[in-house]
Amino acid sequence: MKDKKTYKPCDLVIFGALGDLSRRKLLISLYRLENANLIEPDTRIIGIDRHDGNDEEFVETARKSLQEFSSEPVQDAVWARFSARLSYVKIDLTRLDEYRLLNTVTDNKTRVLVNYFAVAPFLFKDICQGLAKCGVLTKESRMVMEKPIGNDLESSIEINDVVASVFSEDQVFRIDHYLGKETVLNLLALRFANSIFTTNWNHNTIDHIQITVAEEVGIEGRWDYFDKTGQLRDMLQNHLLQILTFIAMEPPVNLEAKSIHSEKIKVLKALRPITSSNVDEKTVRGQYTGGFIKGQAVPGYLEEDGANVVSKAETFVALRVDIDNWRWASVPFYLRTGKRLMGKRTEIVVYFKQLPHNIFKDSFRDLPPNKLIIHLQPNEGVEIEMLNKIPGIDEHIKLQKTRLDLSFSDAFKKNRIFGGYEKLVLEAMRGNPTLFLSREEIEQAWTWIDSIQDAWKHYNESPKAYPAGTWGPIASVALLARDGRAWEE
Amino acid sequence: MKDKKTYKPCDLVIFGALGDLSRRKLLISLYRLENANLIEPDTRIIGIDRHDGNDEEFVETARKSLQEFSSEPVQDAVWARFSARLSYVKIDLTRLDEYRLLNTVTDNKTRVLVNYFAVAPFLFKDICQGLAKCGVLTKESRMVMEKPIGNDLESSIEINDVVASVFSEDQVFRIDHYLGKETVLNLLALRFANSIFTTNWNHNTIDHIQITVAEEVGIEGRWDYFDKTGQLRDMLQNHLLQILTFIAMEPPVNLEAKSIHSEKIKVLKALRPITSSNVDEKTVRGQYTGGFIKGQAVPGYLEEDGANVVSKAETFVALRVDIDNWRWASVPFYLRTGKRLMGKRTEIVVYFKQLPHNIFKDSFRDLPPNKLIIHLQPNEGVEIEMLNKIPGIDEHIKLQKTRLDLSFSDAFKKNRIFGGYEKLVLEAMRGNPTLFLSREEIEQAWTWIDSIQDAWKHYNESPKAYPAGTWGPIASVALLARDGRAWEE
Repeated sequence: MKDKKTYKPCDLVIFGALGDLSRRKLLISLYRLENANLIEPDTRIIGIDRHDGNDEEFVETARKSLQEFSSEPVQDAVWARFSARLSYVKIDLTRLDEYRLLNTVTDNKTRVLVNYFAVAPFLFKDICQGLAKCGVLTKESRMVMEKPIGNDLESSIEINDVVASVFSEDQVFRIDHYLGKETVLNLLALRFANSIFTTNWNHNTIDHIQITVAEEVGIEGRWDYFDKTGQLRDMLQNHLLQILTFIAMEPPVNLEAKSIHSEKIKVLKALRPITSSNVDEKTVRGQYTGGFIKGQAVPGYLEEDGANVVSKAETFVALRVDIDNWRWASVPFYLRTGKRLMGKRTEIVVYFKQLPHNIFKDSFRDLPPNKLIIHLQPNEGVEIEMLNKIPGIDEHIKLQKTRLDLSFSDAFKKNRIFGGYEKLVLEAMRGNPTLFLSREEIEQAWTWIDSIQDAWKHYNESPKAYPAGTWGPIASVALLARDGRAWEE
Repeated sequence: MKDKKTYKPCDLVIFGALGDLSRRKLLISLYRLENANLIEPDTRIIGIDRHDGNDEEFVETARKSLQEFSSEPVQDAVWARFSARLSYVKIDLTRLDEYRLLNTVTDNKTRVLVNYFAVAPFLFKDICQGLAKCGVLTKESRMVMEKPIGNDLESSIEINDVVASVFSEDQVFRIDHYLGKETVLNLLALRFANSIFTTNWNHNTIDHIQITVAEEVGIEGRWDYFDKTGQLRDMLQNHLLQILTFIAMEPPVNLEAKSIHSEKIKVLKALRPITSSNVDEKTVRGQYTGGFIKGQAVPGYLEEDGANVVSKAETFVALRVDIDNWRWASVPFYLRTGKRLMGKRTEIVVYFKQLPHNIFKDSFRDLPPNKLIIHLQPNEGVEIEMLNKIPGIDEHIKLQKTRLDLSFSDAFKKNRIFGGYEKLVLEAMRGNPTLFLSREEIEQAWTWIDSIQDAWKHYNESPKAYPAGTWGPIASVALLARDGRAWEE
């Protein structure tokens, strides 16, 4: 599994090393990369936080995080290598003179300084200024941040401006962990390495496309955060729009970051705006009420701990998205995402057009269209739904839907499947920007999303109720039914 | 499984009821249809042959045939129904006055007379005249015959003329058992019920198509017959050309016999002639020498019992076929069929074109094309070979060929798969002509085949030797290599 190519080692500095993001995800991902021999031998990991502590205590924190949040047992040999990389420096991030301590633990001559901002955005300004002031930064240095990058266009500009005051755009690595997922990356292969799909990938042959990101979980104790955000901004602005751009973009000239970013932006710019004039027919907002998930009673959104019972935040959103360009003229993209739905499922379904003439009327009055189904989770894989003759000696040819099937876990049994997050942390350490978000992308996405938020605010309607454990409000069915279509079951 | 529609019962008269074809195939197929409750209750089966015999002895012959040539055990209840339908009449087929005996056992008022000519073609004239003379025929009556229908255009015209003197074309049912196979019928569904293939089915997207009918068996004691015939006429003129027409034809208006026949003839007429001017570059003839089939030594063709050691008959043939019409301009069809090859395999492989631009050069210098693989036997099914990303955390996207797979025996576990022969015998009894060959088709096919035979005769070269248990002579590899292509492994 080890990549033969070697990369320059890093000083990976984690700001907020004792916080939730660091303990739940980052340290665990780093351990897994260590386990796979993917971290350069000389790379060091430096935890920064405002609490007292020393190297030993940080090592202990990391060990506890692994025990608490990782399903895999810790291996002694791997742990020995990993823990030897760790050190800890106490810095109050709001006190700029304390950053000079970084000079004692980093070495920007032999290692690349990678600054991981695992803290809330209000601290970004201080960190940037502290880094600038203490003189550890070089042109090679990087910074890594994660969504949410703002809550709308204005706040995202603010964050990006703060970061841009110290880091140039090619030093900034913005993470959307969906872009590290195997199946999302496989979309590139599916689309651009396979002529049977490439030649069919446009309005001549495709009727419409559905993207579903369904969650079983509720808001998991994050009521305050979530209620200010809502599902549109929490999930659709980033993950679903990212999937959409990968599905819809023109073939890039090559796989370099600039080529892919430029094609993605073209898609985002071609999204037809949703405004107060069409928001009614293009969007559905929902909010879950009490119900059952796998037979277990769960409370409604307004009954969750800490809930404000008059909240109008949406926990479900469905959109009809039109892309105004040559390839996708008249091909709607239907997006839906929600919490407390019937199952955990992320999938893309490409519905091909019906055939113009049906010679099998005796068997099927309406020939069902072919579908390409791309499962992103829980079981990654690709299926093609097509019609075959039912074996039998009847006079008439009878047809049945059947699926050609490729399950990734079956097809690639030997390959360890990494999570999207690990992939991206590694790419950030290696300095490969292809899978990260550009500022232009994020701002374009917010521009489009803000228009929807504004339109909703204009009407100020309550979201439609849906019982937990269903597929969302009935209005979401109607959204497609109006166009003579239905969600994939 | 029973079809609800009822059909008019038949008097199925088997001429040559004690012969090989009747005992090895026809009676066994009829029993299987009985077992599946597919024969109309009042249908009767009348054996005719020149040997002495009576009903009981014919029943006994049928029972023995089942024991000898069928793998399934005979079930008493089914056998009771089946044997009650059987009767026997001794007729010397060359003595026209004996045919009047048919009047005593058939009833053309309540049943359709279906005459199955299970004898050599030289007897067809006598049978036709005998039937005409004795007065049993009506406009409803049918005749059924099997390949070989002639050995060239001239002899096939002769046979068809003899039959046409008594039966009109719509009374004649010519069997090619490949046309009854599930997977051949499924070609219609695959092509005309699935938009992902329909929109891709032409020279814009397809590079070339391969059709392979490989046999493991040798000539199985039929040296005399086979040596006069050769593989081109024994297998390619009928089975491979039939598969080719199903793959290549334009969409028929509907599934009626006339619509399908007319599209098939258009393909046959568009086959570019192979003549002495291009036979060298378009054809390869082979003849097997001694070798091994699954580790077992087998003799060469010239060492078989009864062999004429100077024979130039081909036991293998490979062709490059060009179809001169709009759909298939510049898309060659490569056909190959042979005896004593490495495995028993009938398959169609559609090679799609390479993509015009490769953004995955780091992983694959030449992106392999997508393939649609249709397995006709031994394991019926459909596969699509495409490229997917290999899961892994490497910086470069690495691709791997993977197959989306639909095995018919898995997908349709509950459905009994009938053989092509049974299907066609049933269709003949039911009077549905769609899956039978028209006279025009056969004569068109012979016209094209005769040109190849003439060209071979012109040069009178020996076939290329190939060891039994291989994929044929090396020249067959060269046939594709000249075009920069290779046979599917």
